[in-house]
Amino acid sequence: MLLYSLDLLGTAAFAASGAWAGIRRKMDLFGVLVLGVVTATGGGTLRDILLGDFPPFSFKDETYLYLSLAVALAVFFLHRRLEFLRHPLLYFDAVGLGTFVVIGTSKALAFGLGPLGAILMGVTTATAGGVVRDVLANQVPLILRREVYASACAIGGLLLVVLHALAVSPPLAALAAAFTVTALRLLAIRNAWALPRAPQ
Amino acid sequence: MLLYSLDLLGTAAFAASGAWAGIRRKMDLFGVLVLGVVTATGGGTLRDILLGDFPPFSFKDETYLYLSLAVALAVFFLHRRLEFLRHPLLYFDAVGLGTFVVIGTSKALAFGLGPLGAILMGVTTATAGGVVRDVLANQVPLILRREVYASACAIGGLLLVVLHALAVSPPLAALAAAFTVTALRLLAIRNAWALPRAPQ
Amino acid sequence: MLLYSLDLLGTAAFAASGAWAGIRRKMDLFGVLVLGVVTATGGGTLRDILLGDFPPFSFKDETYLYLSLAVALAVFFLHRRLEFLRHPLLYFDAVGLGTFVVIGTSKALAFGLGPLGAILMGVTTATAGGVVRDVLANQVPLILRREVYASACAIGGLLLVVLHALAVSPPLAALAAAFTVTALRLLAIRNAWALPRAPQ
Repeated sequence: MLLYSLDLLGTAAFAASGAWAGIRRKMDLFGVLVLGVVTATGGGTLRDILLGDFPPFSFKDETYLYLSLAVALAVFFLHRRLEFLRHPLLYFDAVGLGTFVVIGTSKALAFGLGPLGAILMGVTTATAGGVVRDVLANQVPLILRREVYASACAIGGLLLVVLHALAVSPPLAALAAAFTVTALRLLAIRNAWALPRAPQ
Repeated sequence: MLLYSLDLLGTAAFAASGAWAGIRRKMDLFGVLVLGVVTATGGGTLRDILLGDFPPFSFKDETYLYLSLAVALAVFFLHRRLEFLRHPLLYFDAVGLGTFVVIGTSKALAFGLGPLGAILMGVTTATAGGVVRDVLANQVPLILRREVYASACAIGGLLLVVLHALAVSPPLAALAAAFTVTALRLLAIRNAWALPRAPQ
Repeated sequence: MLLYSLDLLGTAAFAASGAWAGIRRKMDLFGVLVLGVVTATGGGTLRDILLGDFPPFSFKDETYLYLSLAVALAVFFLHRRLEFLRHPLLYFDAVGLGTFVVIGTSKALAFGLGPLGAILMGVTTATAGGVVRDVLANQVPLILRREVYASACAIGGLLLVVLHALAVSPPLAALAAAFTVTALRLLAIRNAWALPRAPQ
């Protein structure tokens, strides 16, 4: 129940970030809706395709599609009045990130994937929507450049896999992993952390 | 039978538009063939992946692959002599659009998807090939910018879902939906209709 | 056994080429790892999705993921000292190309695909990882522009399909096809072969 609420909160935050990206790139109404929906549901959909779980979650329970469409629509028409939400959105996004990692990694473990595969599924769930958003907007994906975002997800996924191997109770493990991702991401924003580039 | 003919006509029109895009971007022979095939079969292939129907239609009946390859090859070698086809191509494209929406939405309903998912599958079938074409050509996809194209597909998909819920006879519903998409698209071309952008 | 060794050699070569592309585009550590893994495993993963074989090979046997991560990590930290490998890398890449084509085409035939579909699956296995690498780096994919790369794969796939139809013993057919791809690719590098562009 708590997980479902956080999942919807994260979905809404991701949809808003996608819609804003579309507006910045001067897309029309349809483009903004597509970017909102793809950013919010793309990661989990790709995860389900890779796991062979059809139809993907976004088509099984249409709540996610309706929610992302509604959020993208609101951002399209009211984005100037919603400007005050830009900053808090970063926090909601961080909460969504932690939730998506836990959902993705847990599901991959339940489907019998190995530890590395399960971590990658958590990272994919949390980040692939944003990658597709940036590819459609014709930009090098943000997370491949210079920010602690996907690496926070990888650390959370790793923690969950370790706790799972230690037979820690699943709700506790999920909580610890989600909290870790969200906390790392918030610290990264506050302190402008960045990953190194290759020595030149 | 009529549906199959229209489907092949649409496939050929989409393959030609993909091949022309490749030539404009100065791609080599292989690139032009890839863009032709991907534009023509990419949408239906993605739809079948999302529905979990393997192998996708394009690999079940290789007619679509041979047809797109042949069209792309002809455009590659004869594109100057085929220049007179550029304008009519827009009409064939519009007919393909209506056909693809009806095929995609009907198949999604048959696979048990909900109304919103079914509409999205119709839109995906008709537009995802063009999106991949533009991503490969390193451009923001045309349909996300400023044209009534995907929105005509969404309206046709919605109409089909409503007629299906009202238990209208399937062939009649399909005809009405396909006609609506094609007519909207042709009107949009003639009148240079465009969707609004977000208020700045 | 030989095939598995060549497969791992090709995987390592592809991972290195992906990691180098990430460094050139000034990506951070995470971006370089993603480009390495995606370039090395993306083609086979897309092939398995299209064939409906879940989970894809890269998640069934995690060796490929660990190997690509290790290679990308090494390139990230040591790329200046590994500069002497840049030239030999082209040869390993050519060997990987031949191996991937044979694996992809054979698997597609085993899954009952038709001849054209099987050839396309061989080409996809060998080239889709590089296409995704270039799309993520925001460039028109190299293989769509001006080089004999994917076309060497298509010729090898065609040869394998023909030998299969003639009931030539599978190991012999595989060897002949892989050798053809690798030899064509090496000749293309040495002689700077390129495919034609469309007559303007």
